[in-house]
Amino acid sequence: MTSAQDTGLAARLAIRSGAHRGPTSGLAGGYVQGNLAILPKALAADFMRFCQLNPKPCPLIGASAAGSWRVPELGADLDIRTDIPRYRVWQNGELIAEPTDLRDVWRDDLVSFVIGCSFSFEEALMADGIEMRHIALNKTVPMYRTSVATAAAGPFHGPMVVSMRPMSPSHAIRAVQITTRFPAVHGAPVHLGRPDLIGIKDIMKPDYGDAVPVRDDEIPVFWACGVTPQSVIATAKPDFCITHYPGTMLVTDRKNTEFAIM
Amino acid sequence: MTSAQDTGLAARLAIRSGAHRGPTSGLAGGYVQGNLAILPKALAADFMRFCQLNPKPCPLIGASAAGSWRVPELGADLDIRTDIPRYRVWQNGELIAEPTDLRDVWRDDLVSFVIGCSFSFEEALMADGIEMRHIALNKTVPMYRTSVATAAAGPFHGPMVVSMRPMSPSHAIRAVQITTRFPAVHGAPVHLGRPDLIGIKDIMKPDYGDAVPVRDDEIPVFWACGVTPQSVIATAKPDFCITHYPGTMLVTDRKNTEFAIM
Repeated sequence: MTSAQDTGLAARLAIRSGAHRGPTSGLAGGYVQGNLAILPKALAADFMRFCQLNPKPCPLIGASAAGSWRVPELGADLDIRTDIPRYRVWQNGELIAEPTDLRDVWRDDLVSFVIGCSFSFEEALMADGIEMRHIALNKTVPMYRTSVATAAAGPFHGPMVVSMRPMSPSHAIRAVQITTRFPAVHGAPVHLGRPDLIGIKDIMKPDYGDAVPVRDDEIPVFWACGVTPQSVIATAKPDFCITHYPGTMLVTDRKNTEFAIM
Repeated sequence: MTSAQDTGLAARLAIRSGAHRGPTSGLAGGYVQGNLAILPKALAADFMRFCQLNPKPCPLIGASAAGSWRVPELGADLDIRTDIPRYRVWQNGELIAEPTDLRDVWRDDLVSFVIGCSFSFEEALMADGIEMRHIALNKTVPMYRTSVATAAAGPFHGPMVVSMRPMSPSHAIRAVQITTRFPAVHGAPVHLGRPDLIGIKDIMKPDYGDAVPVRDDEIPVFWACGVTPQSVIATAKPDFCITHYPGTMLVTDRKNTEFAIM
């Protein structure tokens, strides 16, 4: 018998049936997970261009046809309406519901976007012996709104959000090498060593997630974060949109190793 | 008519004839230059093992047979006795001469080692738009003895020497990517951001070369340095050895681009 720990498909079937309702971290090890944004077709071209202009925070790994709940490049069996444990539905920038299924709110003009997530590169970093402090402490990675602007497209604009992982300088150098191999899941860090230069005043006060300690012999290393598109959508206040509930991601059939460019 | 600016061979012929006597920086753009160490055969195996154990400070790019002044893998026409502008001859750790030609001091038991040099990766960094502060200021790169020990082999041991280049955090990340492509010329940085962690007390007081300013929005980035083997040889005090005079390197027929692994 397969369990939700086994494959991307097994994880999605467990979620679809209601057997798994919580965060997806730790499910289907080795399989790519993604951030979700669903927008009306009228906004889809601008949002796609926003991703194209900002590939580090918004690495698009899949997109549906309008009205379709299939994203075949990420999983033949995938149903975007049922395969994520919990969703957030927004109307004019207001959160109106957190359902576990989208079939009741589905519309024929909706386009789904799946954006790469740091789980993939964290797996590669840990395989190389680099500790992920937030995972060791069982916390959510700390995230910060920066003073770095994204490139605007239509109504979509706003600051880049970054995630932070503390490590020794030699691990930071190794982490640049490892994550450079994964451009589809945020790629190399965007900054390191000097949070003040990107508008972060207090490393112990993240805007999202949990603070984690940075030891005296460590530097903070920052990656562009998949929360950026959610933050940008919140600013654009589209009349209707859907995102995943934080921590409950789309589990795909693609392997993390497939996303390594070398 | 070719000039010493044209090719590795033209540079060596100009040096061999006495037409060029100064530093080799700027000669034969695009061609690999190397650090030189010549040791008696009795020490050669230990020194080669030292290079093998410490590839970042001592990336060996060529070695001669005992007694031979040829290093054919670096240039068919190359004569190690005449093709470097100036040499340093050492006896029991004492500097005894700085000749422009080794034919009078040559011995049948001498083995020549050529070690990659940072000129190659500096060219790649500048081609990507990253300023080399010491070059912009017409100075020698600042170098520091660190608290990081090399791996010992026979009589060869001692601290790793590093060179430092200041740059913005985003350029530092790009510099890791670019120099990772060049493992034969020191490769990726060994440290960044926190000189105190590798025993450097004052960044403005290098042990070799010249101090250069680090701006408020920059971090210092450190590469393993080809001065390490010279420092290690000075500690080992072999009865006889020869090195190049600082700044006057061996110009080879190999192209920097050949040394890029991807």
